[in-house]
Amino acid sequence: MRGAEALVGSLTAAGVDVCFMNPGTSEMHFVQALDAVPEMRGVLALFEGVATGAADAYARIAGKPAAVLLHLGPGLGNGLANLHNARRAGTPLLCVVGGHATDHVRFDAPLESDITAVARTVSGWVHTSGDVRDVAADAMRALAATGERGGQVATLVLPADVSWSEGASPAPPLPAAGPFPPDPSRVAAAADAVRAPGATLLLGGPALSAAGVDAAGRIAAATGTRLLVETFPRCWETGAGRTRIDKLAYFAEQAIAQLDGTSSLVLAGARSPVSFFGYPGVPGDLVPEGAAVVGLADPATDATAALEALADAVAGDADPALAPHEAPEPAPGALDVRGLCAAVAATLPQDAIVVDEALTAAASLAMSLQTAPRHTQIALTGGAIGMGLPAAVGAAVAAPDRPVVAVQADGSALYTAQALWTMARERLDVTVVLINNAAYSILRVELARTGAGEAAHSGRAGRMLDLSDPTPDFTALATGLGVPAERVTTTEGLLDALRRAQAEPGPHLVEAIVPALG
Amino acid sequence: MRGAEALVGSLTAAGVDVCFMNPGTSEMHFVQALDAVPEMRGVLALFEGVATGAADAYARIAGKPAAVLLHLGPGLGNGLANLHNARRAGTPLLCVVGGHATDHVRFDAPLESDITAVARTVSGWVHTSGDVRDVAADAMRALAATGERGGQVATLVLPADVSWSEGASPAPPLPAAGPFPPDPSRVAAAADAVRAPGATLLLGGPALSAAGVDAAGRIAAATGTRLLVETFPRCWETGAGRTRIDKLAYFAEQAIAQLDGTSSLVLAGARSPVSFFGYPGVPGDLVPEGAAVVGLADPATDATAALEALADAVAGDADPALAPHEAPEPAPGALDVRGLCAAVAATLPQDAIVVDEALTAAASLAMSLQTAPRHTQIALTGGAIGMGLPAAVGAAVAAPDRPVVAVQADGSALYTAQALWTMARERLDVTVVLINNAAYSILRVELARTGAGEAAHSGRAGRMLDLSDPTPDFTALATGLGVPAERVTTTEGLLDALRRAQAEPGPHLVEAIVPALG
Repeated sequence: MRGAEALVGSLTAAGVDVCFMNPGTSEMHFVQALDAVPEMRGVLALFEGVATGAADAYARIAGKPAAVLLHLGPGLGNGLANLHNARRAGTPLLCVVGGHATDHVRFDAPLESDITAVARTVSGWVHTSGDVRDVAADAMRALAATGERGGQVATLVLPADVSWSEGASPAPPLPAAGPFPPDPSRVAAAADAVRAPGATLLLGGPALSAAGVDAAGRIAAATGTRLLVETFPRCWETGAGRTRIDKLAYFAEQAIAQLDGTSSLVLAGARSPVSFFGYPGVPGDLVPEGAAVVGLADPATDATAALEALADAVAGDADPALAPHEAPEPAPGALDVRGLCAAVAATLPQDAIVVDEALTAAASLAMSLQTAPRHTQIALTGGAIGMGLPAAVGAAVAAPDRPVVAVQADGSALYTAQALWTMARERLDVTVVLINNAAYSILRVELARTGAGEAAHSGRAGRMLDLSDPTPDFTALATGLGVPAERVTTTEGLLDALRRAQAEPGPHLVEAIVPALG
Repeated sequence: MRGAEALVGSLTAAGVDVCFMNPGTSEMHFVQALDAVPEMRGVLALFEGVATGAADAYARIAGKPAAVLLHLGPGLGNGLANLHNARRAGTPLLCVVGGHATDHVRFDAPLESDITAVARTVSGWVHTSGDVRDVAADAMRALAATGERGGQVATLVLPADVSWSEGASPAPPLPAAGPFPPDPSRVAAAADAVRAPGATLLLGGPALSAAGVDAAGRIAAATGTRLLVETFPRCWETGAGRTRIDKLAYFAEQAIAQLDGTSSLVLAGARSPVSFFGYPGVPGDLVPEGAAVVGLADPATDATAALEALADAVAGDADPALAPHEAPEPAPGALDVRGLCAAVAATLPQDAIVVDEALTAAASLAMSLQTAPRHTQIALTGGAIGMGLPAAVGAAVAAPDRPVVAVQADGSALYTAQALWTMARERLDVTVVLINNAAYSILRVELARTGAGEAAHSGRAGRMLDLSDPTPDFTALATGLGVPAERVTTTEGLLDALRRAQAEPGPHLVEAIVPALG
């Protein structure tokens, strides 16, 4: 058996039956193996960043490792930004990177580069398979490694000759490394903290399951502990009928205000909060001065189980304060960000998956979604923009029975717009709400915040943040990539378009024209 | 003076007056400095791969270092593939990557990653500026480093606080490191080689200047030496009125046939030829068995001067065999690759720049262009696809008085199609001939060559190489990004469209529908 076939067959036997890919010459035998191993579904992306972003979201929604196939060092480079997001999300992700044939490396051919050096910056595990007899076992070790440290990227470099040679045999899966169980002493310390006044419980990472947010709600109801969700949750079960929890704000000044008065900050699956960027004169560490930081569960621990243990310790059978279903239609008229977010909430199907790369619209979106029908939110964990459209692909592949709504900023969409084509090819049930304000609005805000603000709207500097002249036409772009699209400028137009999009199978894009900020 | 202003001011004083950029929050003071230093032209790209590919081609055409500004590790990742191509081209390229503020790094904020590890894989020089008082001098050291080893990427990591702090002053440029002069002993050895029968002179890198190809033509005329140009030239002066030289073929079997009978292979600015990929049973080293390899000038040496010295030694005043101007219009009818390439040649303006990312059409294009009007060709030096449209941007910025014609394969175009937007914004005089065959045709060929061929056109494997279902509509995509576009299906339609596009200022895209290979 060829190496590639043993590898692919071993993956499917281990439960990995989807591979997002953008292959090249060195991966042709992996591609060929798709015919020999029909259990593996190959999902083609037209750019590697689409494949890696889709894989990240797939794993978050499917609750199992994702796989991606990339072409040599440049392919890995193209996929790196969304692998960075996956690393920050703690996503179990097997990244197979094709390499030159072992005997070809010494020729330093044009595509030769240091794959492992780049891979190490996003991976917890990196290995180059050196022998066709080992390749299936190497893949199983890589797959097991994706579950370590709470979930990580594991990169297997697959030389072309190891892939094409005969002599391989399948390998059985290794035991999956699960998260660590809760530490009783940490649960006890957290119990002391939440029983005292002024506690804030910050939830993140694996704490944001339905059971985790329910346990958090019981803790808050019983103790008065304030609840917050990290700014960019990897996968958050939220909406009407679930515990109502505010997000920690993106901007440091607002987050500091939210945390004001906290005497102890209990971390459940979240990192201790820091400012996204450093700014002149603004503290980077957002923990209020004098507050104790109590680690209940780090991202490698079963944070949901830790919250349940904490709730059992302090909350008895207290009832969490659940969010009501309140998602009124916005009034007719010209569209703005608030109306856009209200329209998304008003039309959101039950049990949808919402992909949030809304950037300057994200705060308003979070507010509207709190009382929208029950749903799952996935967000930009690592700040590397261009994750939203790929993530919508991955979420839809992972959950074909659930509608996906991607609320997408314009500038970020243009990083990985090729994802629209994969939505069309795979007939994915995705509705993209494309917020076209013709600017890098977030940078206008940031330019002001860093003290360089006068220039944000004019002059040669301001032109670097401006996406007009020409304004991208996302309706044309989506159509060109095979996704039906329409442009709206009013709330009633948006409501109509969203309802029509969600009533039809397959992908749709609604380009919502809103005024630029400021 | 702020660090950013001193840095930008020092760059412009040193002759670097264009910076291709996709900035983020950590680069806002660099952006602000564009207002303070009006000599610097910022060219915005909507994706980092566009910025790096444009910078590469800018330097190749302008004959001086290019500059690019990227946002943190993920921005560098997005730009990595075209930096790989720049590394392979020996392009002098200053890459400024914004970093978190020095005091912010310890917080491991979401966007934190190992920038220098990634940068080292494409750069010959990497440094993080640690003090605002040093930043301008650091930039001048980086700029000087771009000229070392025949031209390389130099990466300066610029922490946000070093950029925003006061206390900087401009720094003067350092002496530019030029190429090494020719080595007389190597010229003598090459003279012995070309005087003997069976010599082949392979030109590449810096040998492909007008003077270099002229000298090569004299050598061939006087000695009967066979001339070849490396498969992917960085910047080649060619066409009618210049020495006619064939390209070394991309496929190893064809290259081996071209080199057959060579007793000595003289390298002028080219690396010793190797197969692009390894294939089962095909040699990786393309030098014929028993042939001597004679290094006249490595890529860090002034290969043009070396060729002139060699010509003076062996050729006296021999006249090179110049290519005639023969570019007949193709006959009317349905378009195919041969007709497409003939139409490009027939309509090519004098002194145009041709960007070749034609892939499966490249061999036919090279043939047609040999006798097209005099022009400069730039090609995909590192094999990382997605270089063509960005390179057209950079070439047009470098040479605003010269028309740019980009002959562009469809699959590769989709990696960095955002370049079209920058063409529109900057009103660049670029004509894109988009070859739409709705497939990764090169991979169909490669799948067959690697022995996995049965699957290339059908089944689950073949689907990974197929770009139909849906077929991208490049006319819609270009229009959506602000570039006027039209679709043609006949040679006469293509000829008309090209003539109209070249008669009007600004960018145009002509989508040429051709049958897929095989």
